[in-house]
Amino acid sequence: MSYEEYTIEGRNAVIEAFRSGKTIDKLYVLDGCQDGPVRTIVREAKKHDTLIQFVTKERLDQLSSTGKHQGVLAQAAAYEYASVEEILAKAREKGEDPFIILLDGIEDPHNLGAILRTANLSGAHGIIIPKRRAVGLTAVVARTSCGAINYTPVAKVTNLKKTMDDLKEKGLWFVCADMDGTKMYDLNMTGPIGLVIGSEGEGVSRLVRENCDMVASIPMKGDIDSLNASVAAGILAYEIVRQRG
Amino acid sequence: MSYEEYTIEGRNAVIEAFRSGKTIDKLYVLDGCQDGPVRTIVREAKKHDTLIQFVTKERLDQLSSTGKHQGVLAQAAAYEYASVEEILAKAREKGEDPFIILLDGIEDPHNLGAILRTANLSGAHGIIIPKRRAVGLTAVVARTSCGAINYTPVAKVTNLKKTMDDLKEKGLWFVCADMDGTKMYDLNMTGPIGLVIGSEGEGVSRLVRENCDMVASIPMKGDIDSLNASVAAGILAYEIVRQRG
Repeated sequence: MSYEEYTIEGRNAVIEAFRSGKTIDKLYVLDGCQDGPVRTIVREAKKHDTLIQFVTKERLDQLSSTGKHQGVLAQAAAYEYASVEEILAKAREKGEDPFIILLDGIEDPHNLGAILRTANLSGAHGIIIPKRRAVGLTAVVARTSCGAINYTPVAKVTNLKKTMDDLKEKGLWFVCADMDGTKMYDLNMTGPIGLVIGSEGEGVSRLVRENCDMVASIPMKGDIDSLNASVAAGILAYEIVRQRG
Repeated sequence: MSYEEYTIEGRNAVIEAFRSGKTIDKLYVLDGCQDGPVRTIVREAKKHDTLIQFVTKERLDQLSSTGKHQGVLAQAAAYEYASVEEILAKAREKGEDPFIILLDGIEDPHNLGAILRTANLSGAHGIIIPKRRAVGLTAVVARTSCGAINYTPVAKVTNLKKTMDDLKEKGLWFVCADMDGTKMYDLNMTGPIGLVIGSEGEGVSRLVRENCDMVASIPMKGDIDSLNASVAAGILAYEIVRQRG
């Protein structure tokens, strides 16, 4: 997977990048520039916890590739996505039953980063995320993945349910995590498997859940509703590891 | 990240906070500042065993949200700490063997929040954290704990090793997580137990590790070094749940 850094230049482009939810690594602002639009951009940057650097015109010109930065320039990072086929190929290469983690709408980049680490270390062959209403491979995800992003392929698909149908034809079984499922210790989660983790707020969506072969529940003894999504993913992934071992 | 909700700034506000019995995690004092009111504040801080840090004006300005720190700024716990005895009492109440999670230097408030959720749902009776080099019960921890902070007691101790020694006398066994330990599935982690989780960067410190009865390792199949600390805590806590169940 390749790392690609690019710059976004000019006031409208930068403000749009922030508002569209793109993760900006660093914002460069012309030192002393204090007009309305620039102040708006700086405010957005602070809201997103982006590193801001105030620099001279010379430095901005040097960083700019278009020469039309208008006093602001953002550095964004992006990683390349893999295909579902590449994930399956990885399992074949290793001579293992496919083990894929599907994320049904994880929005917090720290969670995706942590799940990438878990996928890498639990021996999952890849992660599948949906295109909509989910965080992608942003710079924060890359950083919090502690390098896992370089090893564990992530595929982005338009329709999670359809992807599951395709994978079912290739022999995969699907298990999702939900409260009213069968206790995870009592399920057989060996064999070619897709583990579906729901979003932080809503859990697994109805359509995806109905498309799963098994519903696993993590025993809950306490007072609150749910575990952190990346922790739940870790516990289930390692239950699969235990059963496969 | 904004510290607004839990910094207390200015001489009167800080001295009042101490006198009202509020738990102050840390006191920042302008280095070289020695006048009467500041000396009084430092004396109060010592009386309450609060960590004091002498810093430059630049650092204080950076921490300050009002810009009116007058040379002193206190970081207050958003929530109250429990005692170790209260945690043990909780186990007794439930008629269960104590199950305590000890965090040896977790610094990321999101991790502490996630571990609080795990502790609550895995049936741990409480969490013990050290006073130094660790995050306390801040507003971010409270938020990311999704309510668990209201149910699961957290005790803050001066010396983790000494606390472990006291608990050993009460019959607890200690297991810590480390890479070169025994595979967690092969250990007996039933009975009264303390689960020790190391810090994000350094893992478990040498002294604490040497004081543990068992070293558990989570099987690692991938390319990177380690799991996210709160994910590792979740996997180990639930291995204890599985063995106890």
